[in-house]
Amino acid sequence: MDPIVAIVLILGLAKVFGELLERGGYPPMIGEIAAGILVGPAVLGLVTMNETLELFSTIGVIALLFISGVEMNARAFAAARNAAALTAVTGIVVPFVLGIVGGALLGLSAVEQLFLATVLSITSIGVSVRTLIDLKMLNSMVGNTIVGAAVVDDVIGVILLGILSSIALSGQLELAPLTATLVLAVLFTVFALTAGRRLFLWAFRTSHRMLTHEMPYVAAIVIALGTAAVADAVGLHYAIGAFVAGLVLGPQIRNDRSVFDGLADFAFGFFVTFFFASIGLLFHPDPAVFVSVLVPALILLAITGKTAGGYIGSRPYMGDRLQALMVGFGLSPRGEIALVVAQVSLSTGIITRGLYSGVTVMVIATILAVPLLMKWGFAARKKREEAVKGGRPAAESQ
Amino acid sequence: MDPIVAIVLILGLAKVFGELLERGGYPPMIGEIAAGILVGPAVLGLVTMNETLELFSTIGVIALLFISGVEMNARAFAAARNAAALTAVTGIVVPFVLGIVGGALLGLSAVEQLFLATVLSITSIGVSVRTLIDLKMLNSMVGNTIVGAAVVDDVIGVILLGILSSIALSGQLELAPLTATLVLAVLFTVFALTAGRRLFLWAFRTSHRMLTHEMPYVAAIVIALGTAAVADAVGLHYAIGAFVAGLVLGPQIRNDRSVFDGLADFAFGFFVTFFFASIGLLFHPDPAVFVSVLVPALILLAITGKTAGGYIGSRPYMGDRLQALMVGFGLSPRGEIALVVAQVSLSTGIITRGLYSGVTVMVIATILAVPLLMKWGFAARKKREEAVKGGRPAAESQ
Repeated sequence: MDPIVAIVLILGLAKVFGELLERGGYPPMIGEIAAGILVGPAVLGLVTMNETLELFSTIGVIALLFISGVEMNARAFAAARNAAALTAVTGIVVPFVLGIVGGALLGLSAVEQLFLATVLSITSIGVSVRTLIDLKMLNSMVGNTIVGAAVVDDVIGVILLGILSSIALSGQLELAPLTATLVLAVLFTVFALTAGRRLFLWAFRTSHRMLTHEMPYVAAIVIALGTAAVADAVGLHYAIGAFVAGLVLGPQIRNDRSVFDGLADFAFGFFVTFFFASIGLLFHPDPAVFVSVLVPALILLAITGKTAGGYIGSRPYMGDRLQALMVGFGLSPRGEIALVVAQVSLSTGIITRGLYSGVTVMVIATILAVPLLMKWGFAARKKREEAVKGGRPAAESQ
Repeated sequence: MDPIVAIVLILGLAKVFGELLERGGYPPMIGEIAAGILVGPAVLGLVTMNETLELFSTIGVIALLFISGVEMNARAFAAARNAAALTAVTGIVVPFVLGIVGGALLGLSAVEQLFLATVLSITSIGVSVRTLIDLKMLNSMVGNTIVGAAVVDDVIGVILLGILSSIALSGQLELAPLTATLVLAVLFTVFALTAGRRLFLWAFRTSHRMLTHEMPYVAAIVIALGTAAVADAVGLHYAIGAFVAGLVLGPQIRNDRSVFDGLADFAFGFFVTFFFASIGLLFHPDPAVFVSVLVPALILLAITGKTAGGYIGSRPYMGDRLQALMVGFGLSPRGEIALVVAQVSLSTGIITRGLYSGVTVMVIATILAVPLLMKWGFAARKKREEAVKGGRPAAESQ
C-alpha cells in the first residue's frame, strides 16, 4: 500500500474510533489500538508493520513522553521519588516471581519462564502515561508515583532484557554489558539534569530570539528527539530521554502557550496515534490460543502481579488503600516492548507460537482492563471524598 | 545512521542554516537545501536518501502546498486564471524548444534532447511557492500568476514525462495512457471543486463538534494527505491535490487561528524542512562537470527559457514589464522532479553521467538564483512605485 494512503487510513480510522470510545466514556487510546488491530494482520491485513511506521511509532512515544514531562509538576514528581523507587522494586519483584512460578505451573521450560517473568515485569510507560492523561490523573500523587515507578521500571527492564538475551543466546549470564548499561544510565541521568539541563534551557530561550518564527517549536522537537536518541544510545529506552527533556523544559514551554499547543498537536494530532495503532498492528495471535487455559492464566498473572507489587510498594506512602491499589492498576499495562520482545523471542525460537500468541493477547487485555479499573477506582475515591467532605468535589487530580 | 539521529541532524542543521541565511537577507529555504548538501553524498556523506526521508519529503511538499492553498485568496487566484493559463503554455513551449535546440548544439542524442527539454520545462512548484512565501509575495498578481502557471505546468509536465518514458522505454509514443491521464486529471479537478469541496467543508466543520480536542487539526491533515494521494493515484503530483484541498478549506482554516498555527508549525517546523533538505541530499554531481561548458550552458538555457516564456505569456496581463519579468523569474526554479527524473534516466541508461551531473548543478543554480532575481525585481518595483506615489510604500504584496 502507498505509504501516504496507509497514513491517511490509520490516522483517520484511529481518530474516529478514539472519538467513538470517548463518547462512550472510555479512553480514546483504546480506539486507536483497535484501528491498528482492524487494518493490521489480525483482521483485514491491509497494513503490516514496516520501517516507516516503526519510526512514526518511535517519534510518537518520544512525543508522548516529552509532553508528559512538560505537563508534569517537577517538584511534586521529585517529592514522590521514595514512593516511586520502592514501588518500582516491588512492582518488578512480584510479577517476576509470579512469572517464574506461574510459568513452571504452566509447564514452560526454564528459558520460557525467564521470558514470561521478564515480559510480565515491564510496564508500558507509554500506555501508562496515556491512560493517566486520558483520565486527567497525571498530576496527582497517584499519577506521580505511577510515572516515577514506570521510569525506574523501564531501566530495570532494560537490565532484565539484557539478562534474558544473554542467557537465551549464549546459555550463560554475562555481567559486563549489564554493568556498563547501569553506569551509562546513571551518567545519562546526571548529565541530563546538570549540564544538559543548562544547555537545553539556554537553547530553548535562545530560540525565541531568532528570526525564524517556528524556531522554539523546532528547538523543542530537536531537544526531545536528540535526548531520546542519546538515551537509546546508552541502552535506555527513547521514552526515558524524552521524558527527562520534557521535565527540564516544562516550566518554559508551559509558559509559552502557542509553542505548547503546537507541540501537543504534533504529538496527539499525529505521531502519538501511530504509537498506539502500531500496538494493534503488532497484535497477531494464533486464534487457537483463545480456547486454551494459557490466556486467562497469563492475564491473571499480569494483572495480579503488577497490582500486588504496586500496592505493596506504594501503600506506606499513600493516604489510603484505594490509592495504593490504583498505583498497582496504573502499572499493569504491558505494551510495545512486550510485543517486540515476544516477536524477537518467537523468531529466534526461544518460545513457542502458543506462548507468543498468549502474550500478545495478555498485552491487549491489560491495556483494555487498566483504564476501566482506574476509572472505577477514581470514581470510588471521588464518591468517598464527597461523602466525607459533604459534597465538595475532589480537587487532587489536577 | 539511526533514523532519529538523522532527523535531529537534518532538522537542526537546516533550521540553523536557514536562520543564518535569513539574517543575511536571503530566503531560509537556501539554508535548508545547503544543510542537505552538507550532510548528503556531495560533501560529508553522513546521510543518504532512503524510503523514510522520501516519505518525510513527500509529506513536506504536501504540507507546503496545502498551507499555500490555505493562504491563497481563492477569488484573486481565480481572477488570474487567464494570465496563468497563457503563461503556463508559453512557459513550457519556450524552454522545451530551447532544450531541443540547445541539446542539439551541445551534441546530445535525440533521446537526451527530449530528456533535457522535459527537465527544463518542469517548474518546481514547491520551490516556487516557498520562494514566494519567503519573500511575502504569495498573494499578489505576480504571485497568483506564478502559482497558477506552476499548477498547470505540473499537469503538462506529467504528460511530458509520460512521453519521455514511453519513447525511452519502447522507442515509440503511446497515446492511450496520456489521454487517460488527461481525462483523469480533469475528472479529479471537477470532483475536488464540486462534491469533494462539499465533503471537505462538511468534514472540517463537523470536526469542530467532536470531543477529541485535536480533531480539526487531524481532519485538515487527513484531507490534505488524502486528496494528495488521490491526485497521485490519477497520475498527477501529490502537491496539486494538496494545493486544491488547501484552496477549498482556506477560508475556514484562516478563521481558526489555533488550527492554522498548528498546521503551519507541522509544515514549516518539521516536514517542509525535509523536502528542501532532500533536494540537497539528491545533489551528487561528478566534480568534473564543473569545468565543462555544459554547466553554464544548461544554467543559461534554464533561466532564459523560463524567464522568456513566463514574460511572453504574462506580459498582456501585467501592469508593466517588470512584473512580467518577475513572473518569468518565479517560474524558473527546477527542483525535486528534475532531480528524480535525472536519477531514473541515469540508472536506465538513457543519459550519460555527465548530463546527469550537469542537470543536478543546473537545478541547484536555478534555486539559488531565483530568489535573488525576485528580490532585485521586488526592490526595483517598490522603488519605482515610491518614486511615483511620493514615498507611499507598495501595498500590493500582501
